[in-house]
Order: sequence, then structure tokens, then C-alpha cells
Amino acid sequence: MNPLLKEIRQSRLLWMLVFVPVVVVAERLAPAAHTTLFLLAVLAIIPLAALLSHATESVAHRTGDSVGGLLNATLGNLTELIIAVTALRAGEYMLVKASIAGAIVTNSLFMLGACFLLGGLRYHVQEYNRSGARLHSALLLMATVALLAPSAVADLDAARGDAMAQKISASLAVLLIVAYGLGLLFSLKTHKELFASADHSGDDNSEIWPIGLAAGTLVAVTVLVALVSEIFVSSVQHAGETLGMSPAFVGFIVVAIVGAAAEMAVAFSAARKNRLDMSVSIALGSASQIALFVAPLLVLLSYVIGPKPMDLQFWPGAVTMVLIATLTCSFITSGGRSAWFVGALLLFIYAVFAMTLYMVPPGSHTPI
Amino acid sequence: MNPLLKEIRQSRLLWMLVFVPVVVVAERLAPAAHTTLFLLAVLAIIPLAALLSHATESVAHRTGDSVGGLLNATLGNLTELIIAVTALRAGEYMLVKASIAGAIVTNSLFMLGACFLLGGLRYHVQEYNRSGARLHSALLLMATVALLAPSAVADLDAARGDAMAQKISASLAVLLIVAYGLGLLFSLKTHKELFASADHSGDDNSEIWPIGLAAGTLVAVTVLVALVSEIFVSSVQHAGETLGMSPAFVGFIVVAIVGAAAEMAVAFSAARKNRLDMSVSIALGSASQIALFVAPLLVLLSYVIGPKPMDLQFWPGAVTMVLIATLTCSFITSGGRSAWFVGALLLFIYAVFAMTLYMVPPGSHTPI
Amino acid sequence: MNPLLKEIRQSRLLWMLVFVPVVVVAERLAPAAHTTLFLLAVLAIIPLAALLSHATESVAHRTGDSVGGLLNATLGNLTELIIAVTALRAGEYMLVKASIAGAIVTNSLFMLGACFLLGGLRYHVQEYNRSGARLHSALLLMATVALLAPSAVADLDAARGDAMAQKISASLAVLLIVAYGLGLLFSLKTHKELFASADHSGDDNSEIWPIGLAAGTLVAVTVLVALVSEIFVSSVQHAGETLGMSPAFVGFIVVAIVGAAAEMAVAFSAARKNRLDMSVSIALGSASQIALFVAPLLVLLSYVIGPKPMDLQFWPGAVTMVLIATLTCSFITSGGRSAWFVGALLLFIYAVFAMTLYMVPPGSHTPI
Repeated sequence: MNPLLKEIRQSRLLWMLVFVPVVVVAERLAPAAHTTLFLLAVLAIIPLAALLSHATESVAHRTGDSVGGLLNATLGNLTELIIAVTALRAGEYMLVKASIAGAIVTNSLFMLGACFLLGGLRYHVQEYNRSGARLHSALLLMATVALLAPSAVADLDAARGDAMAQKISASLAVLLIVAYGLGLLFSLKTHKELFASADHSGDDNSEIWPIGLAAGTLVAVTVLVALVSEIFVSSVQHAGETLGMSPAFVGFIVVAIVGAAAEMAVAFSAARKNRLDMSVSIALGSASQIALFVAPLLVLLSYVIGPKPMDLQFWPGAVTMVLIATLTCSFITSGGRSAWFVGALLLFIYAVFAMTLYMVPPGSHTPI
Repeated sequence: MNPLLKEIRQSRLLWMLVFVPVVVVAERLAPAAHTTLFLLAVLAIIPLAALLSHATESVAHRTGDSVGGLLNATLGNLTELIIAVTALRAGEYMLVKASIAGAIVTNSLFMLGACFLLGGLRYHVQEYNRSGARLHSALLLMATVALLAPSAVADLDAARGDAMAQKISASLAVLLIVAYGLGLLFSLKTHKELFASADHSGDDNSEIWPIGLAAGTLVAVTVLVALVSEIFVSSVQHAGETLGMSPAFVGFIVVAIVGAAAEMAVAFSAARKNRLDMSVSIALGSASQIALFVAPLLVLLSYVIGPKPMDLQFWPGAVTMVLIATLTCSFITSGGRSAWFVGALLLFIYAVFAMTLYMVPPGSHTPI
Repeated sequence: MNPLLKEIRQSRLLWMLVFVPVVVVAERLAPAAHTTLFLLAVLAIIPLAALLSHATESVAHRTGDSVGGLLNATLGNLTELIIAVTALRAGEYMLVKASIAGAIVTNSLFMLGACFLLGGLRYHVQEYNRSGARLHSALLLMATVALLAPSAVADLDAARGDAMAQKISASLAVLLIVAYGLGLLFSLKTHKELFASADHSGDDNSEIWPIGLAAGTLVAVTVLVALVSEIFVSSVQHAGETLGMSPAFVGFIVVAIVGAAAEMAVAFSAARKNRLDMSVSIALGSASQIALFVAPLLVLLSYVIGPKPMDLQFWPGAVTMVLIATLTCSFITSGGRSAWFVGALLLFIYAVFAMTLYMVPPGSHTPI
């Protein structure tokens, strides 16, 4: 039997693929039903993200260690990237920036917290490799600091007409991409043994597809995600207003969770199998990748496809939330032990952030 | 002999109980002598706090593990709570908020620093249980972040007329209380072995009273503390002006130290017996409890007993001080070793905070 | 052969001493060629700093453990101190404050990052003493927090006419000096065994000079550094304008790197010999000393030699950069292991700071 069909049949998540045609048809029939379209688009993106993730891993597995690792690392946040690129083309820069900051916070508080909670409900105390976690959290901390330093230090705002904001963001983007390239060299070549335990391609749950099927799925699903993202981005503004959500909230919370859904499924499943090493490396590694690769790539892409260049200046509340999230999770993971309440508290912090952002979107006051 | 009288006879601290009638009488005779009343009230609260602490432990000890643990955890900061409730009723919200923030800072810098210094003057290097300290400091860090996130992210101020400040604080209070409840479940039920070494009810110094005496003392002393707190709160404003102290300074430093005096006595004595595990758990546990229990409880109580609801928005300098104190002491305690100079430096940071707050109370400029 | 001449002959760095007469003569001939004078002064200070460092160590070695340790600790940042004193006399307070903040950031990000990178290029993974590093980073973190607390909490500015800024800075300076004195007692007397591994006077590369030569060199070179610093400080303003550098950038980056050049040479060489313990202790110890000794000393000196008293209020961006740098390097060094990419990321953060400061000097906007 075709492995793709077999996968869809076995995985309950993939039954949600039915929402893909539904949302496309719905958009033709009722282009003004923004809230419905928004919800359908969210439901459609989740199974596509899961397929994308599986296809990427299969391609990576078939192309050997170095190329495969590179692919896995580069395409790991492909869903977030496609959504952000769509928003970029539409000029929705607040949504893009919020989704960058939100992805880091969501990966380091929500994904990690849920892993600790889910794992902790099954195991009394979970131990994981301290020095591996320490390495990941050190890299995440430094990546985040590099991304946020200009926003934290200089109060610039391109919207206000600060010409310097654009120049500084472009230089920063180049620095971050260089750092990302060196990071790949480090994790895939010179020190790959340090990241070996974090390898999750061998997860017994998932079958490795043949290269043709995998590559074909990768391309086809990318197109589908782009298609659905278009509907998502065009409906989100209006839907947000209806549901009382600001663009900042949608980007920070909704896009971040939807975009990371596939990785979360893998990380949660690993936590419930007492393989917290894998969960921690997925959560922290993905957050680092957003800071070092997705964010600067979007800035550079904005010169080509955006209505105008995007800068990397974040609003002050976002800087605070991202730094708090990263510092907290660096500190928590450096211990190498976890129990359910640690996860619950991380989720509480995430809930407090979400609540604050929902009630007080940036700009409603001059936030600190 | 009556154990209560025996205790009073043996403990020099309890001789200070004489200040209780003195302050009550003085308030009748000279209600305008604010500075004297303020000083007498401080002197009267200290021995009452010690009695309260002893009575709570005795009740806790007699009622068995779970109920006792619950009582101990809930009534551990009873003195702070009574003073804050009195200030709440008088509408002194700046004093209340400053005492919440100040109690966290005082417990994590002053109490811990003094323990390290006192212990270090007697022992060359003191070792304590790293993983226990790590757990306590992780919980404190997360509790503090959850408490402060709205203040750090959104610059709201109910006094300025931000309707949202109240709504967000009420929601936050409910979230924190839920987190506190789960924390009790964690520390008293599912993972009580992790907190076992921190048990300080078995301190050989103190005798366990019979349940009747203990419960009676608990009730009677609570009433006395409430009585003295009334005098304290009504005199503090004027006395502060005379002594050049702002309400923020009084709440942050004076109330915080007075309220924690009883716990400090226990923590210091443990440090001098080379039982730093106990000292660390008292200091950090008490600070966590302020963030997760006392602060939200006061918000909820303000709806019932205050002239108007209180919010949980802290002034920016308080947010900075609390976050710095918590991060620093999390970092320091994660090492599991201490020497006198570590304690001295923690006390220096506390002194710098106190000095700054004394010289530049919040509001004198727009603080960052 | 005279050991001083032998040293100059052997060390390629000391050939640069030729720039000392060159810059002095150049200043006479072309006092208006500010950019050339600035560059020549930088080139002249570097070998002088190396000589100063060697002379200090020789004097320290000859005068025995306690006096020697005291000298080494006190004169370790002598070059920074002389440059800062010269700037102080000229009333260039922005330059002085920027060089204080910049020295902490440069030592904790640039020096440490370069050590990790240089060591990592030669050794796959380098291990160092965790508990030693933890002690140094704890002391650095606390010293920095104490130095910055007033700036972080109260938005005062003597330039704006806040009388309190001066008073608070003077009190802070006294507190810091007392803490420094206690720190010497701790590291040289009561707990010197904890700092023993950090002893770098026994570095096999350098020869110990006789006391007469060492003391004479110390005095003579101090005079030369003061002389060259005079030229440096008087040319830096104009040169900065020509090269597009603000006084904040020059102080934060240029003065900090030039002033620490000699220590860097020793730290880098230790890293390349796989003695990271020494590198970490030089970098963190020197940063602590800036916070606890150099900064308050300059405030106190400003009452004697400055045109008016200097305060210790730093601009908000400096506070953020110093705290981020200190927290990050505390976290990184607490692991006890390093590889090249860790160093590279620290250097990237430093580069981002430098870039931001170059493009957006403080004051160009109201920075957060």
C-alpha cells in the first residue's frame, strides 16, 4: 500500500487533511466569512505541518548524514516560514514580527512546559542529559540576545521614520545568518556527537518514506501550505477583530502554536516515552533556529518580496517576554530533572503572557 | 509549668511582648505621637510574629502530615498577611504593593545573604543540597515571573485610569491562586519527598505545644497582631514623613523585615548550625509563597474589604528590583556552596536597593 | 643582558614601543592631526600596557603573597584607570562612564569569547573547573548588579539637574569600595585556596624581574601611559567625529579593548594552552574589579581632580548591555565546558552591541 495513504489512515491527525479542500472551497464560496475561514485555515494547516515534518525527515534520512542534517535543520520550521512569507508579501509586518517573537516564547515555555507536564503525569521524576540541555539552552540564550540586542538597547522604530532602524536590522540579519551557518558547521560537522542524542529521525513511530514520495510530498505540501496560508493571512485581520484578538496576539500565540504543531506532536510523544532529551532538544533547537535563521531570512526576503523592507525592531513588551522566557527556560533546563509541577508553572507563565497580550495589545499604551 | 510561660521565660525575644500593651496604651494616651507609636508597634510585632510562628508549627505538628503541611504553608507568612490586610482596609495600596515586592526581595537577598554571612563566619565553606536549592529557586523564579509579567510587559496604572489594569490583575490573581493550589498538591502530596529535607518543624530548639494551647495562641495572637498592625499602619504615614521615609520605602524594607522577623530567626539559627538546606528552603519558599499566595489573596480580598479593588501593577523600579533579586539568588543558590563573602555581597545588593529607594522613592521621577 | 631589553627583543609586541616617542613627537609637530594622533596613541598604549602588566606581576612576585596579591589585584586594571583618570581631568564624563560599562562588557563577552574561540580552534572540547568559574561569575554578577542598581531603578541624570544623582552615586561608591576591601580579604586571606588555581603569576612565558627594575619600570611606564593617554583623550573627540564614532562608542569599545590588551594577551595564550581556568578567572576577575574598584575610585577621584563630581548613573542602554553580558557569561561559564562555537556566539553578541552603539549612540533617541 502507498505509505502516504497508510500514514493518513493510521494517524488520526491526518484525517484533518479534509479541511484543506474545505477551506479552499469555502474561500471561493464565501470570501467574506473571515472568522470561519480563519478557523478552517488553522485546522487545515495542522495536518499539513505534520506531513511536511514527516516528508522533511524522510528526505533527510535518505540523503545521508550531512545533507540530511542540513535539510532537517533548515526545513524544521518550514510551516512558520511559509506563513510568515505569506504575511510578508501582504505587508502584515506586525503579524510577522509577533510570530517571530511568539515562536521563541511558545517553543521555550509552551512546548517545553507541556512536555514536562505530560511526561510528569506519567513518570514521577524525569531525568535528562544535563550537559546536552545546557548546550542547547546556552545556544538559545545567546541567539536570542543577539537577535534582540538592538531592540533592547536602541528605541528605534521604522514606522516612526527612524532611517537607522532599517540599516541596523539589515546588518543584524547578515550577522545572524553567518552565525547560523557557523552553527550548522558546529552541529553537523565539527561537534555532531554533542547533538547525536538529540537525533529524532529514528523515532520508531514514523516510517521512512522512499525518496521520490518524500520529495514529491515535500513540494506538494509546501504549495498547499502556501495556499492555505494565503487564506489564513487574509482572513486573520478581520477574524481577529471579531474574536477580539489584536494582530500581535494572533502572531504571538495563534501563528506560533499552529506553526509548531507538528514539532509539538513529536516532542510530546517523546516526553510521554520518558525521552525528555529529545523533547528538550526539539523545543530549544527550534527556538534557536527561529532566532538565527527564520528571523534574518525574513528580513532579507522582505527586500525582494515585501512592499517595503522589514526591520527587526521588536516592541518593548516582546523583548521583555522573549528574554524572560529564554532566561527562565535556560535556568530550568540546566538542572536535568523535571516533575509535573515544573511543566505546569511554565505553562502558567505562558498563560499570563497570553492573557496580558490579549487584554493589552502593544500600542494601546506606551509599553515599557 | 505552662509551656507558653516557659517559652516566654526562656526566650529573650519574647520579653519584647511587653511592648504589646505599651503600644496599645500609648496609642490611647498620645494618638498624635506617630513616630513613637510606629517604633513601638514595630517592637511589638516582632515577638508576636515569633509566637505566631511557633503556634502555627505546633498546630501543624499535631494535625498530622497533610493538614499540618497545608497549615504551615498557608500561615507561614501570616504576619505579613495581617499587616497587609490592615493596610488594605485603610486603602494604603502603595504600602501593600511595596510590601509584596519588598517581601520577595527581602527574603531572597537579605534573609539569604544574612544566612550565608552568619553561617560563613562560623564555617569556612558550607555545602548544601544543590538539587533541593535548585528546585526551590526554579519555583521562586517562575512564581515571580508569573506575578510580574503583566507589570513588566504592559505599562498600566489603575491610578491613571486604566480600566484594564484591574481586569488583568483579577485574572492574574485567579491564575496565581490556582498555581498555588497545584503547588501545595505537588509539595505536600505527589512529590513531598523532594521537600522533606526542608522540614523545619523538627528544629530541636522549639517545643511542640499541646493542640489546645497552640490553637488558642494562634487565634489570640492573630487578634493582637491585627490590633498592633492597626496602630502601625495608621502611624506609618506620618512617622515615615518625620523620618524621611516614603510609603514605598516603609513597605519595601520596614514591613518586609518586620513581617519576616520570625522566619528569619529560624533561618539564621539553622545557618549557624550548618543546616543551610533549611535556611535556603525557608527563604526561597517564603518568597515563592508571597508571589503565589499572599499577593493574589490580597487582590481578591480588596474586592471585599478595601475601599476599591487593588491591582497588581507594580511600579517599574519594583519590577526591576524583584527580577534582579530573584535571578541573582537563583543563580547563587544553584551552586550548592557558600562562604561568608557571598552572603556579604547579597547584603550589599540589598543595601544598594534600600539606599536607592530611600533617596529616590517611586514617582519622584518617571522611573524606568 | 638587561631583562627589560631582553624582553623587548623577544616579544614582538614590545617593538610597538617605538610608537611612544612617535606619538609624543607627532603631537608637537601636528597638534591638529587628531585622527593620526588618536591611532598612534592607541598603538603606543598597547605595548605600554603589556610592560605595565609584567612589571606589576614582577613587583607582586617579589613582595610576597599578601602584599603581592594586593598589588596584582589593585594594579591589574592600571591602564584603564590611567586613561579614565586623564579623561576625568578633562571632564569627558561620557567617555569615562562608557569605558567603565564597556570594560565589563568587553571582558565578559569579547575576552571570554575570544578565549573560547581560540582555545576551541585547537582543542575539540575544553573542560575547566566549574566551581571556580561559578564562584567568579557569581561575584561578577553581584558586583555588576550592585554597581547598576541605582541606574536600573531610578532614572536620574545629573546633567538634567537631578541633585540626588550625585548623592546616591557618592554613597554607592563608598559601599562598593567597602565591598571591594572585603573581597580582597576574602580572596587573599580567608579563602585564598579557592582562587589559587587562578594564579597566573607563574605563567612560564614571562620572566620575573628583579624588584628594582620592576618598580622602576612600573613608575616610568605609568608616567608614559599618562602622557600618551593625555594625547589620546584630547584627540579622541575630534578623531571620533572624523571616523564617525560617538564618545560612547569610543569609550565602550575602543578604550575598553585598548585598556585590556595586556590582560587579553595573557588570557588568550592561556586558552591556547588549554588552561581555560586561568582565562576565565582573568576575564571575570578583571570585570569584577572594574565594577567594585575602578568605577567607585573614579567617582571619589572626581571630587579631587575633576572639574565637578562625576555620578555613577549609566544611560539605559548601557545598563541593559552590561546586565545581558554579565548574565549570559555567568550562565555560559557555569557549565565548565566550552567549544569553538560558544566563543563565536559570545563574539557575535559583542559585535551586535558594537554595531548598535556605532549606529545609534545614546542620546540620538530616548533609549529604553
